[in-house]
Amino acid sequence: MPQFKAFRAQVAAGVLTVTLDDPPLNLIGPTFAEDLIALIQEAEASPAYRVVVFESAVANFFSAHVDLTRVPQLLEVIQQFLPGEFLGMLYRRLSTAPVVTIAKVAGRVRGAGNEFILACDMCFASHERAVFGQMEAGLGLLPGAGGVQHLTRLVGRQRAMEVVLSGDDYGAELAAQYGWINRAIADATLDTFVGDLARRIAKFPASGLRAIKTSIANISLPDEHAIRADGAKFLELMNTEEAKSRRAARDERYREDARAEWEMNYGRIIGEL
Amino acid sequence: MPQFKAFRAQVAAGVLTVTLDDPPLNLIGPTFAEDLIALIQEAEASPAYRVVVFESAVANFFSAHVDLTRVPQLLEVIQQFLPGEFLGMLYRRLSTAPVVTIAKVAGRVRGAGNEFILACDMCFASHERAVFGQMEAGLGLLPGAGGVQHLTRLVGRQRAMEVVLSGDDYGAELAAQYGWINRAIADATLDTFVGDLARRIAKFPASGLRAIKTSIANISLPDEHAIRADGAKFLELMNTEEAKSRRAARDERYREDARAEWEMNYGRIIGEL
Amino acid sequence: MPQFKAFRAQVAAGVLTVTLDDPPLNLIGPTFAEDLIALIQEAEASPAYRVVVFESAVANFFSAHVDLTRVPQLLEVIQQFLPGEFLGMLYRRLSTAPVVTIAKVAGRVRGAGNEFILACDMCFASHERAVFGQMEAGLGLLPGAGGVQHLTRLVGRQRAMEVVLSGDDYGAELAAQYGWINRAIADATLDTFVGDLARRIAKFPASGLRAIKTSIANISLPDEHAIRADGAKFLELMNTEEAKSRRAARDERYREDARAEWEMNYGRIIGEL
Repeated sequence: MPQFKAFRAQVAAGVLTVTLDDPPLNLIGPTFAEDLIALIQEAEASPAYRVVVFESAVANFFSAHVDLTRVPQLLEVIQQFLPGEFLGMLYRRLSTAPVVTIAKVAGRVRGAGNEFILACDMCFASHERAVFGQMEAGLGLLPGAGGVQHLTRLVGRQRAMEVVLSGDDYGAELAAQYGWINRAIADATLDTFVGDLARRIAKFPASGLRAIKTSIANISLPDEHAIRADGAKFLELMNTEEAKSRRAARDERYREDARAEWEMNYGRIIGEL
Repeated sequence: MPQFKAFRAQVAAGVLTVTLDDPPLNLIGPTFAEDLIALIQEAEASPAYRVVVFESAVANFFSAHVDLTRVPQLLEVIQQFLPGEFLGMLYRRLSTAPVVTIAKVAGRVRGAGNEFILACDMCFASHERAVFGQMEAGLGLLPGAGGVQHLTRLVGRQRAMEVVLSGDDYGAELAAQYGWINRAIADATLDTFVGDLARRIAKFPASGLRAIKTSIANISLPDEHAIRADGAKFLELMNTEEAKSRRAARDERYREDARAEWEMNYGRIIGEL
Repeated sequence: MPQFKAFRAQVAAGVLTVTLDDPPLNLIGPTFAEDLIALIQEAEASPAYRVVVFESAVANFFSAHVDLTRVPQLLEVIQQFLPGEFLGMLYRRLSTAPVVTIAKVAGRVRGAGNEFILACDMCFASHERAVFGQMEAGLGLLPGAGGVQHLTRLVGRQRAMEVVLSGDDYGAELAAQYGWINRAIADATLDTFVGDLARRIAKFPASGLRAIKTSIANISLPDEHAIRADGAKFLELMNTEEAKSRRAARDERYREDARAEWEMNYGRIIGEL
């Protein structure tokens, strides 16, 4: 097993459980990317597991969003592994890895965090506690790491427009109705449900699992050129005056003492700026 | 603001509210097309709004259907703006306009009226009062202005087959379950919900909104050639003996005194012919 | 009407009702294929009906799965009709036949049986009695006759991954939530609902129905090359040691006295091997 920094990992019954443990927000930054790359490299070699379950040890958050203060460092880590590529193509590499990946979400997951769970093969979420959002529109950006691509395919044009243009928070129930996630599951049974499913799949022959994943992925994964185009557009929009002005307004309100409040209610607050 | 005939329009807080006000049925005919073209042209220039909300001032109807008595005049208006094209390509031009469009539906919307709301970026509907239908099959036709294309992408092959082949009416709840519309919302809160959403989006930077809309549209809008093919097929089917016979049967039953009854219950009655 | 062996057929009001009657399991084998080919050939000629409803006369089962003991004979029948092709391409030929097809499911339908109903234009299912499954993963296989292709398009990448990788049973309610089928309908009203819908459509002009079906199918049916690739992969996986070992484990448990129990609860039991 690689030495992880932001992850904790444990194998049992053919299932690798990866616990995101980088408090307070499990931000998508260079440390996360290093760990994800190490995980992908191991999964592409000969892993002792067939299924990976991603969960979070951080209260209230699966992953809040990208670390906007460390985008250059994040890109540097990614481009050592995938020269010239952005985060969306790293996620896509996870989507084609020869293991089955399941996201188990019991807190907030937004922005690049949500794009990470969309790159997983499945997502099950706590009915009571999971919250999903792509809030980039509120900052003058677009989701640049595959979120637009996945959501449009999963929920259709009209609901993708709503979700991404509003930048608002969506509870697990509505996310499931829209097809954004597999299912909303009562919090008390989520761990058992996902554990049973993961162990069940891990008992099945690896060659069949790989054939199924490949066949489904071949017709449903976003095109690489579209992911790249969204990534380039994200970086371009980061430098517009409109986006800088929105970030300045956010920074003014997002002082240290209001940070917890903001991150808990990002969807609402970004709409109030 | 252009001088509209079938529309009333009002701008506030970056939101243009367009009220369809051409009683008794808000038919899709030459007047509607003239207004829609004027609106698209303004939206493509430099509008004072980022979001357009379409609603209806006509009791019970958002838009009943195309005006079958004035198809040549409708085509003439469209082809002055888009030489050689049919209604579906006019709608597609709306779908790519650099403003966010939301249909708010609290009455019946069928045929080319439904194809109009499918061309909008989103659709929210009154749980109690909205009714959706593509009844062309009952007249020996197919939806010729993008309805087949949009519905198949939104609701999948099997439900699109059901909805279009049956030509029946669908309430807002079932339409939302199928993914035909974004959501069915309690009538008492529909105006507030859509107003809040529209004003929220209108506060966000225009460059980000345009990038999001373009990225989603690029992978989810129908192909132009398929829209054109459906339009040509519609006109071809209009001249078949079967379609003429169905229209004659409809005309016999659809006398002036039965017209309101028919339009209120089109889905049921077309199945009784 | 052709002389069927596994089917019973009856025409009324423009609707052909085809009853699968090959107890105890309505297996997909050479007899089923012969009947389906005869039906397709008649539908492609000049049928006296516009709509075909498929139902089952066998208690508890619409169709259990392919007859794994007779795969060579099944392929021989198919390839006399479609040289070089597998079951998925026979099903695809049904999907493009110039009649409207509706599956009415009130029992278990799994594996190649489920792929058959996915090839139909619509599927309505008994809320209380219908059960759906693609259990191939549990045998080290993938669904080789279009199931992966249809499900991914209907339910999206993440739910298709869940359904196919788990190989588990899904009730009608969840199948409808996922978009796998049109609707789950109370058992007491299923026959009336499907009968009314079929007769309604059968009254509409054939040229319009064919145009609608063709337009929808053109943008939603799986690509032929993908169906062929899945079929070839299925046959390849059949010969892996992993798949042989799973079949041996199944055969050990699947003794004659346990067969009914197994077939009733395939999804659960395949996960216990």
